Amino acid sequence: MHKIPVGVLGASGYAGRELCALVAGHPRLELAFAAARERRGERLRVAGRDVTFVGADEAPLGDAALVFSALPHGASAEWVGHARAAGAKVVDLSADLRPGNGAAHGAGKGSAGALDAGAPYGLPELTREAVRLASVVANPGCYPTATLLALLPLLARDLLAPDATIAVNAASGVTGAGFTPRHDLLFAEVSEDYRAYGVGNGHHHLAEMRAVLAGFGGAAASADLVFTPHLLPVARGILATIVVPVREAIADPAALWARHYAGEPFVEIADAPPSLREVVRRNVARIHVTTVRDTQRPTLLILAAIDNLVKGAAGQAVQNANLLLGIDETAGLLAGVR
Amino acid sequence: MHKIPVGVLGASGYAGRELCALVAGHPRLELAFAAARERRGERLRVAGRDVTFVGADEAPLGDAALVFSALPHGASAEWVGHARAAGAKVVDLSADLRPGNGAAHGAGKGSAGALDAGAPYGLPELTREAVRLASVVANPGCYPTATLLALLPLLARDLLAPDATIAVNAASGVTGAGFTPRHDLLFAEVSEDYRAYGVGNGHHHLAEMRAVLAGFGGAAASADLVFTPHLLPVARGILATIVVPVREAIADPAALWARHYAGEPFVEIADAPPSLREVVRRNVARIHVTTVRDTQRPTLLILAAIDNLVKGAAGQAVQNANLLLGIDETAGLLAGVR
Amino acid sequence: MHKIPVGVLGASGYAGRELCALVAGHPRLELAFAAARERRGERLRVAGRDVTFVGADEAPLGDAALVFSALPHGASAEWVGHARAAGAKVVDLSADLRPGNGAAHGAGKGSAGALDAGAPYGLPELTREAVRLASVVANPGCYPTATLLALLPLLARDLLAPDATIAVNAASGVTGAGFTPRHDLLFAEVSEDYRAYGVGNGHHHLAEMRAVLAGFGGAAASADLVFTPHLLPVARGILATIVVPVREAIADPAALWARHYAGEPFVEIADAPPSLREVVRRNVARIHVTTVRDTQRPTLLILAAIDNLVKGAAGQAVQNANLLLGIDETAGLLAGVR
Amino acid sequence: MHKIPVGVLGASGYAGRELCALVAGHPRLELAFAAARERRGERLRVAGRDVTFVGADEAPLGDAALVFSALPHGASAEWVGHARAAGAKVVDLSADLRPGNGAAHGAGKGSAGALDAGAPYGLPELTREAVRLASVVANPGCYPTATLLALLPLLARDLLAPDATIAVNAASGVTGAGFTPRHDLLFAEVSEDYRAYGVGNGHHHLAEMRAVLAGFGGAAASADLVFTPHLLPVARGILATIVVPVREAIADPAALWARHYAGEPFVEIADAPPSLREVVRRNVARIHVTTVRDTQRPTLLILAAIDNLVKGAAGQAVQNANLLLGIDETAGLLAGVR
Repeated sequence: MHKIPVGVLGASGYAGRELCALVAGHPRLELAFAAARERRGERLRVAGRDVTFVGADEAPLGDAALVFSALPHGASAEWVGHARAAGAKVVDLSADLRPGNGAAHGAGKGSAGALDAGAPYGLPELTREAVRLASVVANPGCYPTATLLALLPLLARDLLAPDATIAVNAASGVTGAGFTPRHDLLFAEVSEDYRAYGVGNGHHHLAEMRAVLAGFGGAAASADLVFTPHLLPVARGILATIVVPVREAIADPAALWARHYAGEPFVEIADAPPSLREVVRRNVARIHVTTVRDTQRPTLLILAAIDNLVKGAAGQAVQNANLLLGIDETAGLLAGVR
Repeated sequence: MHKIPVGVLGASGYAGRELCALVAGHPRLELAFAAARERRGERLRVAGRDVTFVGADEAPLGDAALVFSALPHGASAEWVGHARAAGAKVVDLSADLRPGNGAAHGAGKGSAGALDAGAPYGLPELTREAVRLASVVANPGCYPTATLLALLPLLARDLLAPDATIAVNAASGVTGAGFTPRHDLLFAEVSEDYRAYGVGNGHHHLAEMRAVLAGFGGAAASADLVFTPHLLPVARGILATIVVPVREAIADPAALWARHYAGEPFVEIADAPPSLREVVRRNVARIHVTTVRDTQRPTLLILAAIDNLVKGAAGQAVQNANLLLGIDETAGLLAGVR
Repeated sequence: MHKIPVGVLGASGYAGRELCALVAGHPRLELAFAAARERRGERLRVAGRDVTFVGADEAPLGDAALVFSALPHGASAEWVGHARAAGAKVVDLSADLRPGNGAAHGAGKGSAGALDAGAPYGLPELTREAVRLASVVANPGCYPTATLLALLPLLARDLLAPDATIAVNAASGVTGAGFTPRHDLLFAEVSEDYRAYGVGNGHHHLAEMRAVLAGFGGAAASADLVFTPHLLPVARGILATIVVPVREAIADPAALWARHYAGEPFVEIADAPPSLREVVRRNVARIHVTTVRDTQRPTLLILAAIDNLVKGAAGQAVQNANLLLGIDETAGLLAGVR
Repeated sequence: MHKIPVGVLGASGYAGRELCALVAGHPRLELAFAAARERRGERLRVAGRDVTFVGADEAPLGDAALVFSALPHGASAEWVGHARAAGAKVVDLSADLRPGNGAAHGAGKGSAGALDAGAPYGLPELTREAVRLASVVANPGCYPTATLLALLPLLARDLLAPDATIAVNAASGVTGAGFTPRHDLLFAEVSEDYRAYGVGNGHHHLAEMRAVLAGFGGAAASADLVFTPHLLPVARGILATIVVPVREAIADPAALWARHYAGEPFVEIADAPPSLREVVRRNVARIHVTTVRDTQRPTLLILAAIDNLVKGAAGQAVQNANLLLGIDETAGLLAGVR
């Protein structure tokens, strides 16, 4: 069967390389180009083949039916415009087009504003039909993916307690901080350590989550979301641990979550707390939900684990690309990443 | 100066070995015996000297002015009685005598019940004067130490919001699970992983925290405490991340915490989120507090980091022993553990 | 196409579980049973399906065309006999039938001795044709696999210097020490540590390597082999670092190694030192060879990396099973282990 | 007692920070300045106090009785000259003045050549008396420290076999590669990996070791030294694993090593293979030596563990400083680094 050519912008970072590997193993896609400005000419070994990076300016955007942009926040929106102008559909992995980020990224604002209207948020478990009809998709952030998939069954049923404070504690592996060398990401700094960052609602993923919550109206719109990310001494994986008061006691929350996600290929409802090992290199969110014992107000504890580079980035991007291109949503995503 | 003889029961576990090391480096204490039933006759190298374990039955309890019991929960209370009968003061590192654990440990109930009356909870920053007058102290659990030190300034001023849900997420290094070999503690199982356990308020430290909170009355007594511990791929350290709604906005929470702990030798108020590296091998709790931005209800984010084996176990036990013995509370604790 | 039923004895250990995963993903094999005495009745999740362990006594040996034995050294040979009596071919992953181990494992000696005659050493790159004709294969140890694949091009050409001392330093991930809980394998003991063990030629894999070397005669038979294994703080992977004096300078050793292994599907000659990441979860040995500079006697430095659980155990076992069963040697082995 | 002012150039790297910490805890030294060009104005927290970095050009060299230079190789020699001109003694932690490095560092050659005459190699266990009389000392590299301390008892007695090949395999923690951010030193690249580098005698520490060996004459001068360093996924520590043929069998090598190092405060002869944990944060080399079994030529296996930042860098530098300044060689070095 004919393979569909796709390109990757920002191919040398962690998400970009994961995209190249997923495309290399995809039954319906082939890599038209992999662009990485600073590493132009270097080769990357993915799935047993060599990929040579081109500069972004040399990337033959028009050769690709679809372009993944894994460029940095602020620098991506402009390239989304170039790719669209060249006739390619786009999955943008940056924050530039995501809800809640309009003001945050001044540099790309002009083009982003224009595109935003037509760029649905690419969380297929929430927005599948919009994605199918779109030309550009804003691929969700890693933390929002874990958090929102954990909360969707509540949000869809308006089960949050009025005036709820949703406490989201999340911990991410180091690849979530990117491939650009920094002192604080050196092995000798991260090993045997653990710390919070962006505390007190300082992380830029918060706006994205809040915008999605607001879209549900009801108690979700007035909830207080408190988001605290942490840096884990692991390479990959995110675990979100969420404490959320609910309107009334839910007899069997696990059954409710299972019903909500029935038929979803990439959500697993687990009967025990999920661990990073269970999700790493797989395009899944693995969720456990339980009622907290011995509280006066009915409260749920929800845990959601994903691989930040797969369901939290490149895997979800391929899932969105499959939808944009009208092929099987699971194509190239069931076998995991090598 | 004459050194005071102390003994260690349960000396071969992580907390027991840490106690031996702290005693070896203590200017006023010397090790009368180190008992470890299963490793009787084995030698431990601490602080440049060899310690030979004796069996618990052979431990010359009467030779010690004070006995540390690092025996397992349920097995400790009986030995507390033996040590008392032999005339020694006792710091019990097990949960047996801690508040909230009366029913939980049937085996030791009789003696524990009797002792409980006279065994204050040994969190010196809260109960210093009671400890000074006692003969037996219940050394706090590691998670409660971090959590309670984080919350004390609020509790003391009844600043919790009415009907508050206190969401305590905590992550601990693997030594917190003890030295007994288990499949799930093997390096190859823990490395590159992270997971919650005891979710939905299933951890036995919860009763201890609740009992202390109840003692404060007011909003603390009616708060919902939701405690979720996690296993970190590090050897040592606990970080507690706490989301707590407060009665009213607090203008400068860091200043309030600093005032509350002014003069405390083992509490540090940090102007940035604490990391495990900053506290490992030190008898300190390092706390950061900040107001959460953009919430409708005033909410604090409090982070507290300790070394689970030092301020969370052996170091705090020595701090309590110093108080029981009437010597400088900081003796042997400022230089860290080797 | 009809799938061939195979069974796994000792299925709950690291190699056993890897075997179950490889069989689950194999296009021509299916799992007839997975036996694990101590974990009878427990379920293992492999490749998206649940496997329930049976006790070894309940294992329907006769239902399997081939049995993998991942039982402990000393306990395996007896079960090899049982499986043979039931009509199954056998790949024995224990040391019981390996060359050089006759005397070492008294318990299984009787049967082992009998079988030994007909049990070739299953290093296909050396003994492929013998394996094809056999009913029982002795699957090599992990260290010998890395070491011998590194040395074979020299041995086959008698290029070792006379009276050579071959210094083999090897480092292995912790899964190499097995799944049985031990103090020294706990995360908190292994993390941030590194040490040698079995030093001074005390490791039982040495006899196996020596026996194979002796089979080559010439300088190999009289060489001094010095083998020093080390424990790495990683879960998987072995790197062997070998210093070996050669008879005469070799102009282009990389080319010689490439020629020797031309057409081998599971040996890669690398132009840079291999890293564990390049081989983990893959059934390959990745080898780099270079001439040592500035020495008076011509000397090679050879590095060989494998995954101890794949090419060093379960993957190689499947490779041998493929040969024993007359199917494609690479079947089920090109995609890696999930 | 009056404290002696010392300065640190290159204070922001791993060795520089370790020097600041050691000086802060030293009973006879105090920090006159800590210079770090790129981090000028930043504060470093060491031993409970804040140190503010000055630029190198601002460093009051003349205020220091002794200057430690932890500047990069090639950049250090010039500053050694400046410090000498200002009247300070110098311990140079760079390679610039070390034996064997004359040609390697062109930039500093002129001054280095001049100084070399008067700059003994600062391995006190070999050159203590020369250091006492010097004004400038070339502090040894980390790998040479471990390797040479392992070999000195052999070298001093000319016990190497004629035409010996000394195979030195060494593995180092990541701090050995410095604090400058690099892709290959990121946590996510190093964790769960292990690899050799500088293979085939490509590491610049080789010249240093060879120059010292040559100084012994005899078999040492004609031995082939093969040195292969590896990168370990740990923060600190070096283990050197050395295979060395000897002239004749040595009945009790451990006793010989113990005799050679009798009275040395910073060398420990261990009766089991040393682990990194035993030496980390301590200024010691821990050595184990054993005769290799079942070889035709008498061969020793020697293991030496050090902390690359302490006995391999900053600790040894303080040891040399103590000698240069005529104070107790062990001052500030027995308690370990915090």
